[in-house]
Amino acid sequence: MAITVVGSVAYDSIETPAGKRERCLGGAATHFSLAASFFTDVRVIAVVGEDFGPRQEAVFTKRSIDTRGIEHAPGKSFFWAGSYLDNLNEAKTHQTDLNVFASFEPKIPAEYADSEFLFLANIDPVLQRRVREAMPDVKLVAGDTMNYWINDHKPALLEVLKGLDILLINDTEARSLAGESNLVRAARAIQAMGPASLVIKHGEYGASFYQSGNGSGAKYFKVPALPLDEVVDPTGAGDSFAGGFFGYLASQKQLTPAVYRKAMFYGSVMGSFAVERFGTERIANLTRAEIDERFDTFRELTHLD
Amino acid sequence: MAITVVGSVAYDSIETPAGKRERCLGGAATHFSLAASFFTDVRVIAVVGEDFGPRQEAVFTKRSIDTRGIEHAPGKSFFWAGSYLDNLNEAKTHQTDLNVFASFEPKIPAEYADSEFLFLANIDPVLQRRVREAMPDVKLVAGDTMNYWINDHKPALLEVLKGLDILLINDTEARSLAGESNLVRAARAIQAMGPASLVIKHGEYGASFYQSGNGSGAKYFKVPALPLDEVVDPTGAGDSFAGGFFGYLASQKQLTPAVYRKAMFYGSVMGSFAVERFGTERIANLTRAEIDERFDTFRELTHLD
Repeated sequence: MAITVVGSVAYDSIETPAGKRERCLGGAATHFSLAASFFTDVRVIAVVGEDFGPRQEAVFTKRSIDTRGIEHAPGKSFFWAGSYLDNLNEAKTHQTDLNVFASFEPKIPAEYADSEFLFLANIDPVLQRRVREAMPDVKLVAGDTMNYWINDHKPALLEVLKGLDILLINDTEARSLAGESNLVRAARAIQAMGPASLVIKHGEYGASFYQSGNGSGAKYFKVPALPLDEVVDPTGAGDSFAGGFFGYLASQKQLTPAVYRKAMFYGSVMGSFAVERFGTERIANLTRAEIDERFDTFRELTHLD
Repeated sequence: MAITVVGSVAYDSIETPAGKRERCLGGAATHFSLAASFFTDVRVIAVVGEDFGPRQEAVFTKRSIDTRGIEHAPGKSFFWAGSYLDNLNEAKTHQTDLNVFASFEPKIPAEYADSEFLFLANIDPVLQRRVREAMPDVKLVAGDTMNYWINDHKPALLEVLKGLDILLINDTEARSLAGESNLVRAARAIQAMGPASLVIKHGEYGASFYQSGNGSGAKYFKVPALPLDEVVDPTGAGDSFAGGFFGYLASQKQLTPAVYRKAMFYGSVMGSFAVERFGTERIANLTRAEIDERFDTFRELTHLD
């Protein structure tokens, strides 16, 4: 079933211990879409500026991603510059230019209306909520957020959480949102805010899945990250995880506990590819065979036999 | 097959967000022995003072642990006081009194000579090496260490590492020992120092197993920690992990890759029990049925089906 995703399509300038890239294609919706496109149909809602041309468009269309919801506006695309020189787990932001994003009014193309899955990537919760309300009939809604919205826009974010089935956030965000340092208690507090399911991403330590109100199957599930001897660029790893996770869910007829488990694996698989190259370089050129092979590596890494 | 363990048998005064305990029985050899005793015969080499009486002795003998190698010396037992008020993953040491440990000369009882497994718990590497050399015929040697020895006694520690098959340390220690922040590269560097196998413990994020020179089976294996909504006392969790891991290995006829995987699970299982109560309270009163039940919980937590 098709996923509609709303979020940023942007340019990133990135510096890591492995090197530098200027203005590479990025943004949460970009990373999410590319990862999810290996599993199901993906439709993007975003806004770009005049600096977004056919070469960028082709990154999406090559993966058969529907870009009819990418609005072209006068001006420049969202731009972010950051580095990970001291700590690969946390970006240091040097510059954020909202540009065309500052006045973004998400418009949902009629062709997207039958999407059964909706992903609200990390943007202003006011916009997330607007898209959520414009698509009331979707079957499953997942979303992401970040510390900026948790700290400075909490009331708007709490409204979004009420309409989410699944929230994906990292350790720090979960602790901050719940005001609780123990992650199990933090998860429980966040589930009480709305999302019955929660994915907490632990960076190099993998991710945890928490599900409440689920009679059969596990309430908890853990997936590691792949041990990598070089992380080239962590930008987009979380969005790629979300794309693999949610993309796999959308490809399945029934959302059983076993399907959620596999979705966590596919999330970690896509996150592991994302960090191997700068920006979208790795995932835009990935094959399904590589994904399946890495899935087996994750099984080998975790299973007793 | 029997394990001989050399290490500290001590008293600990501990403060955590869950409460306080004065002078409870502790020490690396104590936590290790208790955990390992559920899997195989365990023999302890340590020194205690006049404050170690029949009540403490009974904690060992109740688990059929051989205490003939626990030397009784004039004076007081090793004493440690610490707290985990800000961070459950890292103890703040308030006091360390070596007492009878200051002049400890490990003596190996004749009855221990046929032990096929040797565990060198975290003590002065000079003593670890002496015990290792006094038991040249053991089948498998594992050991632990800590930042103090890595930073201030590195030459002696490097000599110990040459004689180890398996080293168990935590993230911070691995990075510090290798001088390398990436854990995969750090593991490789440490393996080049001697131990073909390495267990890196990640606290609440579980542990990783690295094995080199192993033709078949996985080079890497990951086991999570149990999601706990309260960690009462982290003291001894790493030693309990080591006890479960090495105890299980010692109980097996052949050390296949599958056996190492199960050993990692048992390590994490024993670590998860250790933190549920202060000191040895939980593991000293554990049953094998509880261990098996939790093993199944770990399988459920990690396996696709």
